[in-house]
Parts: sequence; C-alpha cells; structure tokens
Amino acid sequence: MEPLSPKGCSINTATLGFKVPIGRVIEQIASHGFGAISPWRRELVGQNVRAVARQIRDAGLKVSGYCRSSPIPALTSDEREALHSDNCIALVEAAELGAESFVIVAGTLPDGSKDIEGARDQAAQGIDRLLREAEKLDLPLAIEPLHPMYAADRCCINTLAHALDICMAVDSSNSRNIGVVIDAYHVWWDPNLTAQISRAGAGRRIRGFHICDWLNPITDTLMDRGMMGDGVINLKQLRRSVIGAGYCGFAEIEIFSDRWWKRENEEVLRSCCRALNDISI
Amino acid sequence: MEPLSPKGCSINTATLGFKVPIGRVIEQIASHGFGAISPWRRELVGQNVRAVARQIRDAGLKVSGYCRSSPIPALTSDEREALHSDNCIALVEAAELGAESFVIVAGTLPDGSKDIEGARDQAAQGIDRLLREAEKLDLPLAIEPLHPMYAADRCCINTLAHALDICMAVDSSNSRNIGVVIDAYHVWWDPNLTAQISRAGAGRRIRGFHICDWLNPITDTLMDRGMMGDGVINLKQLRRSVIGAGYCGFAEIEIFSDRWWKRENEEVLRSCCRALNDISI
Repeated sequence: MEPLSPKGCSINTATLGFKVPIGRVIEQIASHGFGAISPWRRELVGQNVRAVARQIRDAGLKVSGYCRSSPIPALTSDEREALHSDNCIALVEAAELGAESFVIVAGTLPDGSKDIEGARDQAAQGIDRLLREAEKLDLPLAIEPLHPMYAADRCCINTLAHALDICMAVDSSNSRNIGVVIDAYHVWWDPNLTAQISRAGAGRRIRGFHICDWLNPITDTLMDRGMMGDGVINLKQLRRSVIGAGYCGFAEIEIFSDRWWKRENEEVLRSCCRALNDISI
Repeated sequence: MEPLSPKGCSINTATLGFKVPIGRVIEQIASHGFGAISPWRRELVGQNVRAVARQIRDAGLKVSGYCRSSPIPALTSDEREALHSDNCIALVEAAELGAESFVIVAGTLPDGSKDIEGARDQAAQGIDRLLREAEKLDLPLAIEPLHPMYAADRCCINTLAHALDICMAVDSSNSRNIGVVIDAYHVWWDPNLTAQISRAGAGRRIRGFHICDWLNPITDTLMDRGMMGDGVINLKQLRRSVIGAGYCGFAEIEIFSDRWWKRENEEVLRSCCRALNDISI
C-alpha cells in the first residue's frame, strides 16, 4: 500500500497558470502541504534567483525540477549557439535553485523544415553538449519525451525508448547525470510503456514522474489536460510501474488547462489534494 | 525516378467530405484520371452494393480499400458480438466491391474504461476472428495504426510495430491475408518508422499507403489534415521507403479537413492532382 500524500507530491507551477508572482505561488503550494515545487523560467525573469531559492527552502519545499530548456534544433549554427547559450544560463539558474534536475524539452523542426531525423540528430548532439555543462554544475538533466502529437511543433523526442536511447548515447560512462521524465500525459498510450519504464529503472534513469489525466476526448492539443481521475489514464498502474522500477521521488502534478487556469490557485490546489486518492495504490 | 500520376493514386472518399452521393463521386474521381477509389460504408447505406461495384468497374477504377471496421473492443460480450456481426457484413460488402483490402480501425477503450491493455487484447482477438471470416471470402485485411492522439477515442493500435505484431500473431501460417495500411499522417512522427516499413515489406504486409500532410500547428485533432506539400511530412522520403520495401499499389489520398470539405469536389480533386508533384521521387 502506497498512499500518496501532498508531501510526496510536487506542484509544477504550470498547473496554476502563471497568474500570480512566484513568491505568492510558493506560499500557496507550501500552505497546502506539498513537498516540492517545479517552477518555470518565465516566473524568474527579473527575480533574484538566490532569493527565490531561499524562499522555497524556507517554505520547506524541495525543487523537483526546473522547466525547461529552450529548443535545441535550429536552421543555422548561429541560432543553435544562441539557444545553447540560453540553455546554459538556465542550467545555472537550476543549480542555484537546487533543482533535482533541469528538464529538457528538446524542440523540433525549425520553421519550414521537413527533416525530423535531422532535428533528432541536432537534439541528441545538443543534449550531449548541454550534459557537459550540467556536469560542471553537478546538475542532473532529465529528458522529457513529449506526446507524438507535438512532434512538429514542440519536441522531436516522442517516446520513452527514444529518450533512453539518447541517455545511453550521451552518457557512455554511465554517470547517470542524465535521465528521463515520465509524464503520464505524454506516454500513457505507448504499448512499450511498461517495458521502457523497467528499462529506465534498471538504468537508474527515472528523474521525474509527472501526473495529470487524458480527457476523452481532448478539445485542444495543449490546453485540455485533466485532473487526475477525470480521464482515461490508469494512473494507479502507471505509478505502480514507476515505483516498481525503483523511483522514489516526487509525483509532480502538471496540468495545462484553460479550465483549471481560470480557477483560483487555492481551489486548484485543494482539488489536487483530493485527486491524490485516485493514484494511491 | 518515380513520378506519381493520378493513375497511380486512389481517392479515399473521405477527402471529398461525403457531400454528394457515391454515384456522382465515382464519376468525379474517374474524370480526373485517378486509378482507384476507396469508399466508406456510410456511402453505401441503402445502395445496391453490386450495382455500385459495377459502376466503379465500368468507370475504370479499382477499389484500393473499403473503409472501415466498426470498433472491436466493448464492455460486454453481447456488444462485442454485435460489433463482430456488423464487421462480418462489411466484409461481404468489401468482397462484393472487389476491394483490395478491408481496413481495420480497431477501436479502443469502451466508455468509462481505463484499461487500454485490455482493449488491445480484445482488438487482437477480434482481428483474429475477423481474419477467419475474411479468408472465406478471399478478402485481405489491412490493420491501420492510428496516431497515438487517438488512443483514447478511436484506435488502440498506434504504431506500425504494434500492427505488425498483431499480423504475425494472428497469421501464424504466414498466409499474408492480413497486412497494414501505412498512413503518413498517423506514422510520420515515429522514430522507428523506416525500420518498421522495411519489416512490413519483408513480410509482404503493406496493403495500403495513405497520404496527406500534417499541418503545423494542427488546429483540430481530427479535421485539420493538410494537402500533400502543405505540411511538415517528408512525403518523398516516406514514399521512397514504402516503394523500397516492395509496395507497388496505389497511393491513396485521404484528407479529413473542415477546410477542404467546404470546397467543391472538382476543386479538391484538381488540387490533389497538382499536389502529386510533391511526392514524385
């Protein structure tokens, strides 16, 4: 029996729709008893990152992850360099926050390109390069495969198998400084899911576990995620697989949703607490 | 050099939005020089199937496929039986039409279910049973894997690899009476695509090749497919793979699109002819 309490959960701040400043968000998340937060870069613009890090620590929260990389593939090497530099700045922020990992959403086809294989090659090379920088900061990276419906516009890494292949290719020394985020929304459909979760666990590569639900039908590809229990994902079984593979980190709630974003943060956080029953096992 | 002429193409009637009766659709498709048609069951309701088959033949068209199966998984065995019986009727229609294959879109989670593995088991068993019926009619079956974004509401077979696994499981005698449809829209994102096309070809399992394009971004999960050339799929490369794997059947144009459906059939068919340049190799 593995019930899931707020203490074992992290709130990815995307769940709260970026409506109020990060300082207030930290207070709200802590006041509901959650164990961690996963902030986004957009919330730290113009902020003193160390002061934010201190506020998070003082509130008793861990930082389960920091979201997220700029895209890696680009049409020209100048653009690629600019994106890489931007990602290096994000790595420093993540390290200052004490994040358990920096989340890589790889990006995909540059404008006008039809070369997804080329984008995948660029993504793998860019992740390799970023890993060298992250290792200097003692900061783990976590590749998040995104659902195949985002292959054209957001991320060319679309299966857990592909993300793990890249981990193994760039981490030939098996440092385990790079792993994967398993996000229920992105991977639930995959017939190889259970096998790939086992593979990720055996390689000690599970660096994050994100939860929400897939509503049926979805009305928007991006902004229609559901609260746990409101959709079709067998979250209990998924959590059992992830725990069975050796993961003992936070379950991170991440819900992009026009509907949830319209509600008050307090109401959303209360609903998150209630929904945890749906993934207690 | 493999240019693609209308003669080498089939028009899936979904491309024309079901606006006019099948008799008129047949005339229109033939008049633009296409080599084949792939009609839907809904167009034959209340029609004399043999008369339609004769009209198609007399117009000089082949029937590249017949769309498509009712869902296979269901909550109760009574429902499953009813769906199976309905599919058996469709098989007879497909045979009467002289279709090169009957297209299986497997269906998925029954209402309220979160058990996609169970749905997949039911789908495989149902396909096995349907294959026995189809063999009596000397009619090939073609499993069409649908994009993973349809896993909850339309089809639980979401990769070419999974479709081929089912082919091999149900066709242990290697009769090749069952194969796959490779639809660009559904499979273009798959990092294993080239390898799985080779596998399908080596097993002589490619029973259909559907084309359209993936617009970037899509505005609707179902009704926003693009004309070949208007999106991000490298259709030339995909066609090269499919031909390289030994497929020499029709390229079937299938475009679900609110925008194209609003236009006159003649205009859509002219646009299809023009767009073939984009996949000449």
